[in-house]
Amino acid sequence: MLTTAERLFSNDWDAIRRIIEDGNRFLLTTHVMADPDALGSELALAEGLRCIGKNPVLINPTPVGANVQFLDSSHEVQVFHAGLDCSTFDAVFILDISRWERLGALSDPIRLCGKPKICIDHHPYTGGYADHHLVNTNACASAEIVYDLLNYMAIPINERIAECLYASILADTGSFSFSNTNARSHKIAAELLNKGVPHRQIHEKLFQNHGAKRLQFMGKVLSGLQFDCDQKLAWMTISHDFLQENGMTFEEAEGFVDMPRNCRSVLLSIMFLEVEPGDIKISLRAKGDFNCNQLATIFGGGGHNHASGIRMLGTMQEVEHLVLTEARKALQPFLNLTQSI
Amino acid sequence: MLTTAERLFSNDWDAIRRIIEDGNRFLLTTHVMADPDALGSELALAEGLRCIGKNPVLINPTPVGANVQFLDSSHEVQVFHAGLDCSTFDAVFILDISRWERLGALSDPIRLCGKPKICIDHHPYTGGYADHHLVNTNACASAEIVYDLLNYMAIPINERIAECLYASILADTGSFSFSNTNARSHKIAAELLNKGVPHRQIHEKLFQNHGAKRLQFMGKVLSGLQFDCDQKLAWMTISHDFLQENGMTFEEAEGFVDMPRNCRSVLLSIMFLEVEPGDIKISLRAKGDFNCNQLATIFGGGGHNHASGIRMLGTMQEVEHLVLTEARKALQPFLNLTQSI
Repeated sequence: MLTTAERLFSNDWDAIRRIIEDGNRFLLTTHVMADPDALGSELALAEGLRCIGKNPVLINPTPVGANVQFLDSSHEVQVFHAGLDCSTFDAVFILDISRWERLGALSDPIRLCGKPKICIDHHPYTGGYADHHLVNTNACASAEIVYDLLNYMAIPINERIAECLYASILADTGSFSFSNTNARSHKIAAELLNKGVPHRQIHEKLFQNHGAKRLQFMGKVLSGLQFDCDQKLAWMTISHDFLQENGMTFEEAEGFVDMPRNCRSVLLSIMFLEVEPGDIKISLRAKGDFNCNQLATIFGGGGHNHASGIRMLGTMQEVEHLVLTEARKALQPFLNLTQSI
Repeated sequence: MLTTAERLFSNDWDAIRRIIEDGNRFLLTTHVMADPDALGSELALAEGLRCIGKNPVLINPTPVGANVQFLDSSHEVQVFHAGLDCSTFDAVFILDISRWERLGALSDPIRLCGKPKICIDHHPYTGGYADHHLVNTNACASAEIVYDLLNYMAIPINERIAECLYASILADTGSFSFSNTNARSHKIAAELLNKGVPHRQIHEKLFQNHGAKRLQFMGKVLSGLQFDCDQKLAWMTISHDFLQENGMTFEEAEGFVDMPRNCRSVLLSIMFLEVEPGDIKISLRAKGDFNCNQLATIFGGGGHNHASGIRMLGTMQEVEHLVLTEARKALQPFLNLTQSI
C-alpha cells in the first residue's frame, strides 16, 4: 500500500491494469455537472472496457447536461439514486475529479464501498480517497490520460472512443488555444481524426449550439462592459432582474466572461451574475502572468490560475464593491508594465 | 512548357527545386492586405531560402497590417514602388493568390518581367500567368504547401520558420475549427510546436489583440441583430454614421459576422457595413450545407463556400433589400429541414 505522499506522485499503471484484467463489472463516474472532458473521458473509457469484454456501468451524481447530450446519444449514463450499492462493482473509476466533494451524493457511497478506487485526472491533485492514481497535470485533458491508459492496455482506439476523446480535448484546450495545448495534444488529435472523427460537427455541437436570442442578450451585456486599471480590468454585471427581462436563464450567460480577454489590454475579466436574488456567481478569467485563482481564494473560491469562480451572498452593489476593491489591489503590480502584446 | 490545363492540375516540384538551386535573388510577394497565411507563408519561405544561402526579397502591394506586424517584427517586407524592376530577380514566388488582380499594382510588373513565376496556393485555382504551380486545395493553408516545399528541398524547419507556418495555419483553420482542418493539419502543428513555437502568444496576437472599445461596440451591434427564415438567417447593419458615433473604423468590425454562426439555428450570417457613405461591404458566412458563395456571385462578389464577400454602392436600405431578398430565396430549400445539430 502506498503512503499518501507516494500516492500523490506515483502513477499506478500496472496495478490498474491488473484490476481491469481481473475484474468484470466496473463503476465509472465523474463530478457534478459533467463538462465535455469529464463525460468524454468516462464514455471513452467505458467503450474501451467494453471492447475487451468488460462490463462498465456509468453513474453520475447529476444528469448529463443538454450541451453534452450529443456525446451520450444512447443514454449510457445513469443518474445516482440513493439505493445504489457500490460494493457490487469490482472497482470504481473516478474521472476528472479536482475535488472529491464534487462527486456530490456519490461521494460517501464510493468512499465507503470497500472496492479499489482509481482516480484519473489532469487537475492539480490535492489528495483524496482513491487507492490508485493516474494523475498528470501536463495532460491537456483527462481524456489524454484515458488515451494513455487504453494504449498501455493495448486496447485499440475505435471511432467511438476517438469521438469522445476528441470532444474532450477540443473542449478542454478551447479548440487548441489554451496554454495547456502542446505538441502532444496535436499529435493525439491527428491520430483521433484519422479514425474518422467528424471534427467539424463536434465543434459545432460544442461551440455553435447556442440559442439565437442568447447572442442579442450577449450584445446587451457587452455594450454595458466596464473597464478600470488602464483597461487591464474589465467587468460585466447581470442582475436577476436583467435575466428575467430578457427571458434568459443564468446558464445562458456562460462564456460571456471569456470575451474581454480578446482585448489586448485586459488581464482580468470578471462577470457578476445574480443566479437568484441575492445569490451571486462571480466568474474570473485571467491572461498572461495574472493569477485570478489567488483573488478567488480571498473570497473562498478557487479554480485554475486563468479561470476561477466565487459564490457570494449579498446585493450586487456590495459584492461588486468587495471583489473589485481586491481586484484593483491585485492588479497594482501590473499597471506600469508595458503591454507584452 | 505545360499547357494551361496541365498547369491547373500538375505541381511542378522538380522544376521549382531546380529554379531555387540555380538562382540566387528571388522576389517573394502576396496579395493586397496580406492576411496571416499570406504573410506567414511568405516569411517562412524567405527564411527557408536564406537558410540555404539564397537572397529573398519580399515586396508586397500593400503595407503589412497592424494585426500581423508581429510576424514581421524586423520589417523584412517592403511595399511596392513604381520604379521596381522585376527583371532583376531570378524568379518570382507568388503566395496565397486566389485571384491575380489581388496583386494590385504588382500585377503588371510581375506579369511582364520575363522571369519564371511560381504560384503557391491552396485556393481553388482559376488560372493565371505563373509558369510553375504548387496548388493544393486540400491544404489547410498556403503555409502547408510551403512546409511541403521546404521538406521536398530538405530545408530544415527552424524556430522562425515554424513560428510563421504555425501562425498561418492557426489563422486559416480558425484555431483548428474550420472544415479545412484535418489530421495532417494537427500533425504539422505538433511538429511546429516541437520546434519551440510560443503558440499561446501567437494565439493572443492573432485573436486577442483587439482594442477595449471594440468589444462594447460589438455589443451594440449584436444587440441589434435581426433574424428571419426560422432563425436560419441572421444579419447585422453598421452604418457609416454609427461607426462615427462610436469612434470606430470599419476595420474594427472585422469578425463580427462570424458570431451568429454560434447560434445553432443560423445557416447564413450577413453583415452590412457602410465603409464610406453609400459604399457598402457585405460579408457572408455560412454553415453546414448552405453555400454563401453562390449568393455572393449574384451580386458580383465571391469567395469560399462558407465565407464570401460583396461590395455594393447604394443606400443601406436599398442594398439590404436586394441582398436579403436573394438570401431568403436561397434559404427556402433549408426551411423545412430538421436541425442537424
